[in-house]
Amino acid sequence: MTRAELHEQIKRKGSFLCVGLDTNIKKIPTHLQEKEDPVYSFNKAIIEATEGLCVAYKINTAFYEARGAKGWESMEKTMKIIPDDCLCIADAKRGDIGNTGEQYAEAFFKKMDADAITLSPYMGEDSVSPFLKYENKWVIILGLTSNPSSSHFQTPELYKKVLSTAASWGTVENTMFVIGATKAEQLKEVRAIVPDHFLLVPGVGAQGGDLAEVAKNGMNDHCGLLVNSSRGIIYAGNGEDFAEKAREAAKVLQQQMKTLLEG
Amino acid sequence: MTRAELHEQIKRKGSFLCVGLDTNIKKIPTHLQEKEDPVYSFNKAIIEATEGLCVAYKINTAFYEARGAKGWESMEKTMKIIPDDCLCIADAKRGDIGNTGEQYAEAFFKKMDADAITLSPYMGEDSVSPFLKYENKWVIILGLTSNPSSSHFQTPELYKKVLSTAASWGTVENTMFVIGATKAEQLKEVRAIVPDHFLLVPGVGAQGGDLAEVAKNGMNDHCGLLVNSSRGIIYAGNGEDFAEKAREAAKVLQQQMKTLLEG
Repeated sequence: MTRAELHEQIKRKGSFLCVGLDTNIKKIPTHLQEKEDPVYSFNKAIIEATEGLCVAYKINTAFYEARGAKGWESMEKTMKIIPDDCLCIADAKRGDIGNTGEQYAEAFFKKMDADAITLSPYMGEDSVSPFLKYENKWVIILGLTSNPSSSHFQTPELYKKVLSTAASWGTVENTMFVIGATKAEQLKEVRAIVPDHFLLVPGVGAQGGDLAEVAKNGMNDHCGLLVNSSRGIIYAGNGEDFAEKAREAAKVLQQQMKTLLEG
Repeated sequence: MTRAELHEQIKRKGSFLCVGLDTNIKKIPTHLQEKEDPVYSFNKAIIEATEGLCVAYKINTAFYEARGAKGWESMEKTMKIIPDDCLCIADAKRGDIGNTGEQYAEAFFKKMDADAITLSPYMGEDSVSPFLKYENKWVIILGLTSNPSSSHFQTPELYKKVLSTAASWGTVENTMFVIGATKAEQLKEVRAIVPDHFLLVPGVGAQGGDLAEVAKNGMNDHCGLLVNSSRGIIYAGNGEDFAEKAREAAKVLQQQMKTLLEG
């Protein structure tokens, strides 16, 4: 999906919502546990219930890897059913040297058909460039994360350098950055460095964060934002109506986003 | 495996060699391709040929993920046959916030039985602490890597801060650091900060690096070094005698290491 196509979907759906499929087999409704692949059945229902309200799905690889090869199968099957009008993000936070990076790119962009992958910048350009060779695919590089210990190393000096340096490796057409929503006031500083890039903003919902603040400081002329919510949506309900509850939770965010997009 | 046990194996085998199983299905001998699981068969033969000469195996997850769920199965099967007297390292370079980190720890320390995992420090302590809860397991944190673009962000200021800060999260009994061998002169500086930690040194072999220099500047009273070689060993031969060739290549390094340990 190109940047223009993504912007088109955002306008059409009145949404810049990304639904995070951090699907933990221990947390999904009991009536799904007897299915052949409970995690896949859960994801399928969540996707069918929310696809009209979001423009991206983010698959957190850790939750699938925790179940080994079977979990990896659930991930592969889930990637296949992400609708074409939604960006499919592998939230993998990989990052390794060139020949290893090529293997990760093959894993997520060729063997699976993710549109985007999250990457850690610690090893520099070598660890990102193998992914940029793929046309119509995106890298989403960790800039400023929202977790409590992010400040251990992500000083303003470092994350600003990451943004300005990593922005030069690709273009606004194939590079996004992860920027933690709990630091909305810092979005202005981020936008001063990367005014035109899309930003993936986690942390709305379970991790806190203020959507209006994010929109105010982070939006650009292509919207430029994907705001993620995982647990707040997928675990909104825990009964037979879990998908409907997820839809309702997604709808609340989508309605706020629609207003913000029109504002 | 505890630090004392690892040191015991190093003395017993006269080796601080780590064999890197960066097994690419396209690069293994053609006669193995008809096996049910060619990558597993290859790894099994390499392990049987080299286990007396090394103290660790490092499984580079990218090469397995590139083959999807089937590759993940090969990885699981390989982990199971790493001998008890060798450290089993998952070279995964993961790094994500607490609840996601817990899932990665479950993937590699519970679902699989790796003894150690490589981690990226970019997100700070939250992304490492879930792994430190496991007894008798190790985290191996990226400090200074050996790839050409490592200096993009790994300035002396940053990697020294990573070493001194991350050293305080765990102990010398559960924390190691990745330090690139191509920068042997920097090992002295590293040792000034973390004198007692084990260091995982990639880059001997295909990536260059000088073993004697590394030993001179990096060794401590527990040896304190695991030096990795991947392609130089596992692809030493490409015929029916590939395992024997791998053994010979490993033996060359082990003999040098034996001399360095005695010196």
